[in-house]
Amino acid sequence: MNLSALQSAFDARLETILADWVRLLQFPSISVEPAHAGDCRACAEWLRDRLIRLGFATELFESSATNPAVFAERRGEPGAPTLLFYGHYDVQPADPLDQWLSPPFEPQWRGDRLYARGAQDNKGQFFGVLAALETLIQAQALRATVKIVIEGNEECGGTPTIELLERHRDRLRADILLACDTNRGDNGAPAITMGLRGLFVLTATLHGPAHDLHSGVHGGRSPNPATGIARLVASLHDADGRIAVAGFYDDVRAPDANERALANAYAGDPDAFERENGAPPLGGESAFTPCERTAFRPAIDVNGIFGGYHGDGSKTIIPSEATVKLSARLVPGQDPERMMDALVKHLEAHVPAGLRLEIAERGIGGPAIKLDPNSRVVEQARAALTAMGGPAPVFLWEGASVPILATLPAMAGAEALLVGFGADADRIHAPNESYGLDQFLGNYLFAGLFIGAMGKRLRDGGAC
Amino acid sequence: MNLSALQSAFDARLETILADWVRLLQFPSISVEPAHAGDCRACAEWLRDRLIRLGFATELFESSATNPAVFAERRGEPGAPTLLFYGHYDVQPADPLDQWLSPPFEPQWRGDRLYARGAQDNKGQFFGVLAALETLIQAQALRATVKIVIEGNEECGGTPTIELLERHRDRLRADILLACDTNRGDNGAPAITMGLRGLFVLTATLHGPAHDLHSGVHGGRSPNPATGIARLVASLHDADGRIAVAGFYDDVRAPDANERALANAYAGDPDAFERENGAPPLGGESAFTPCERTAFRPAIDVNGIFGGYHGDGSKTIIPSEATVKLSARLVPGQDPERMMDALVKHLEAHVPAGLRLEIAERGIGGPAIKLDPNSRVVEQARAALTAMGGPAPVFLWEGASVPILATLPAMAGAEALLVGFGADADRIHAPNESYGLDQFLGNYLFAGLFIGAMGKRLRDGGAC
Repeated sequence: MNLSALQSAFDARLETILADWVRLLQFPSISVEPAHAGDCRACAEWLRDRLIRLGFATELFESSATNPAVFAERRGEPGAPTLLFYGHYDVQPADPLDQWLSPPFEPQWRGDRLYARGAQDNKGQFFGVLAALETLIQAQALRATVKIVIEGNEECGGTPTIELLERHRDRLRADILLACDTNRGDNGAPAITMGLRGLFVLTATLHGPAHDLHSGVHGGRSPNPATGIARLVASLHDADGRIAVAGFYDDVRAPDANERALANAYAGDPDAFERENGAPPLGGESAFTPCERTAFRPAIDVNGIFGGYHGDGSKTIIPSEATVKLSARLVPGQDPERMMDALVKHLEAHVPAGLRLEIAERGIGGPAIKLDPNSRVVEQARAALTAMGGPAPVFLWEGASVPILATLPAMAGAEALLVGFGADADRIHAPNESYGLDQFLGNYLFAGLFIGAMGKRLRDGGAC
Repeated sequence: MNLSALQSAFDARLETILADWVRLLQFPSISVEPAHAGDCRACAEWLRDRLIRLGFATELFESSATNPAVFAERRGEPGAPTLLFYGHYDVQPADPLDQWLSPPFEPQWRGDRLYARGAQDNKGQFFGVLAALETLIQAQALRATVKIVIEGNEECGGTPTIELLERHRDRLRADILLACDTNRGDNGAPAITMGLRGLFVLTATLHGPAHDLHSGVHGGRSPNPATGIARLVASLHDADGRIAVAGFYDDVRAPDANERALANAYAGDPDAFERENGAPPLGGESAFTPCERTAFRPAIDVNGIFGGYHGDGSKTIIPSEATVKLSARLVPGQDPERMMDALVKHLEAHVPAGLRLEIAERGIGGPAIKLDPNSRVVEQARAALTAMGGPAPVFLWEGASVPILATLPAMAGAEALLVGFGADADRIHAPNESYGLDQFLGNYLFAGLFIGAMGKRLRDGGAC
């Protein structure tokens, strides 16, 4: 199908598509909160039933450690290539609730944007693709074999889902793994994401006095865990924003000149970051451009820090303990286990005198992944994005992590392709998440063009 | 009266004295919680009625900004010196309530210790003195004029009480101001407190992105307010624990050799700190002994630090802001306003790139005070403590602040004398506050001996 045929089919079914998207967003499928396990299952069953109506053979992959993962398969023409499409129906918690302008699970249109938790990440993005598959199937224009995995544990660490999918490895075999969980360019240009960073997390607590102490009686004599945790965190970076953990850069694989040029060429509007986020992009290593920092450099961030009194006014205590939650983003070449060990060793070596360090909640989110700018799959995706007729597509190296995507390509024997239409303004993981109708249409049109083209040129020997 | 006469009188009235102490502790006179204003007034009225029965002329000093302060006066022999005794009937909040082994306002004896909020601070300490005054009066052994101020706002900042007492300045004139709100030596020796530190507090917040950001998408590019607040706090001290704020030591008045020797001579058991508090005394400046650090050196402590996610597991965000609550303890010579300005200037100069600093909740608790080891009043107090027959009295320089005591001596034209019988084990300001009967008896016997001796040697020309 060409662009105008896809667009016409979209317009014809517009109300149904949007109503179903709204229905999908009404499930409070928060995977980190056990109280929402039932909502996650209901969401999975709703998706399964939808895919059955589309003509897919479906199954819920189940394990005691996960919410159900929806698996669906529709055989294509003999000899046609196989696409495995990945998405996740679970969402981040919605707190702080009082900052939402409309309730997070009562989707609300304001202008051409739909506001709800998950509006973009990932329900909006994957539902645009499902709408495209429906169009292709109704038009009898789908030649490829299509497999779908939409899982329910992406927002709470990838390991259980990886273990679940590993058990069904044979069912997942494919030529191309497509995921739509990434961003377009800052200027609105469609984008192929060429890399995602790896991730690990940990929680570090410094224990001091057995109980809170009077800051007058003991100030300047007792070790202070809150002062200590600050000094420990400050030891992680040097004055130039470089990570000061010994060995942390040893295995960093540098991008080649082409990758670096491509990344900087499409860095987008330099003011866009501050306009979207309210702060200039002055974090991290001053020796690299902002886009190089998230593309090719590891990062260690404080996700939370807390200890002592946090109410109004003052309470003059030395707290008995203080805690920091850290996440580290990794780039190609860095092994998550080795880097976690390096960080723990650093923390242990920098414990201020008189305090005791406890490390907890270690979690590995997987290594980084990178795509090859010269691959045929990437070239075909670029062609589909170009055919959409808007700004020329760009190559992006994103800083985020999708742990399952670091594992799934190898598991399925497939080449990864990451094309998403998200934007910073969507505020994923934050209050008032939203997704624009133009972005949703992007997911739809790209999937229609790219998947619709699969199998057309089998005689050329390529997968697309 | 001599020691044995005082002890006999105590034994004879033991049950009444203890029952009245328990009654006093049943008032939940928490001054920072407006809901307890009625309890504060009831406590003040109970104290006033008790002092009337003892033969004092009484008055409640009132203002719209304070709980009532109990004022009482009993004229002594013509020409006898005047003692002004200061105490406070208000107490700290009792939370966290679930950590109390018995309810905070239902006093419970366990062995020879009485457990309740305020058991020591300050109800236990001042009530021992009132019991001694009763003994002296009943024995017709009180020659001095005695004035009493027991106020109800010490635990929520001194300014309103200072303003209240200023209005009654003429009534407060005295030769000696005695307060019993301090500690004895670690080894149980009675102690004269030779100094208290000054205090100011502030709250500093670093603002970054307008909303929480995804730590993957933006990690290494966005400024991180939680990392930033840690670096800001870490900038406050050098590696040797010395305060790194420019000018902070400029006005510090060094102790003389005698004071330094006295402080170190009575530093107490070096293991006592760790035994009582569960951590070694390794905070602060390594160039000074632990007791010198709280005696003669200023300190800046983190009372609370918070920003970002503080629940279980991980939430991979860059928080939009992070906050630290700081308290500074000051020593003789340091002006609180000037030091506050120096700290604010330091914070402003060290804001990490891309973040915005907001300073709030500035509060001045007053300057430090110090006593003169060579004064006749201190000598007479030492004589009274020696006459108690236990371990030899010690000189202590305490690190805590009693803002009203920094002002009241000048207001009353009186020389300050600070003799208390508290101990770290009493856990003032914390759950399960308690006070030992031996400590309470210390307050009683010292007050009986010291106040009983006042006016005896008028012909010697001294105040005592």
